[in-house]
Amino acid sequence: MVTQSYVVRGMTCGHCAAAVTEEVSKINGVSDVEVDVSSGSVTVSSRQPLDQVELRAAVDEAGYELVTS
Amino acid sequence: MVTQSYVVRGMTCGHCAAAVTEEVSKINGVSDVEVDVSSGSVTVSSRQPLDQVELRAAVDEAGYELVTS
Repeated sequence: MVTQSYVVRGMTCGHCAAAVTEEVSKINGVSDVEVDVSSGSVTVSSRQPLDQVELRAAVDEAGYELVTS
Repeated sequence: MVTQSYVVRGMTCGHCAAAVTEEVSKINGVSDVEVDVSSGSVTVSSRQPLDQVELRAAVDEAGYELVTS
């Protein structure tokens, strides 16, 4: 199991958190997604390290932007 | 047809606007709901003047607060 945190820009409320959680949860191997709206932190637990392209696409699909670290 | 504007507190994004629009649209006689997130303005067109208790309940159901004028 791998747990890693990312920063997502543009989330303002619980609906935003739910949208990001829903899309990131669809990525193969993801077992848990925790979002903190105020900091923009998204913490993802997954079976294997996440593919950054896939993660970025999921965040984009939700309507937000993954901040490149 | 009656068109009247109200102020709703707590909306921050398009999801919030959609939630308020959905709940207020369910009120009997309502034909149009326009939301401006930045000002909190919600403009409702309806067949007859809205019952304030019903409107307040709809806004509350969406998760926001109708500001008493």
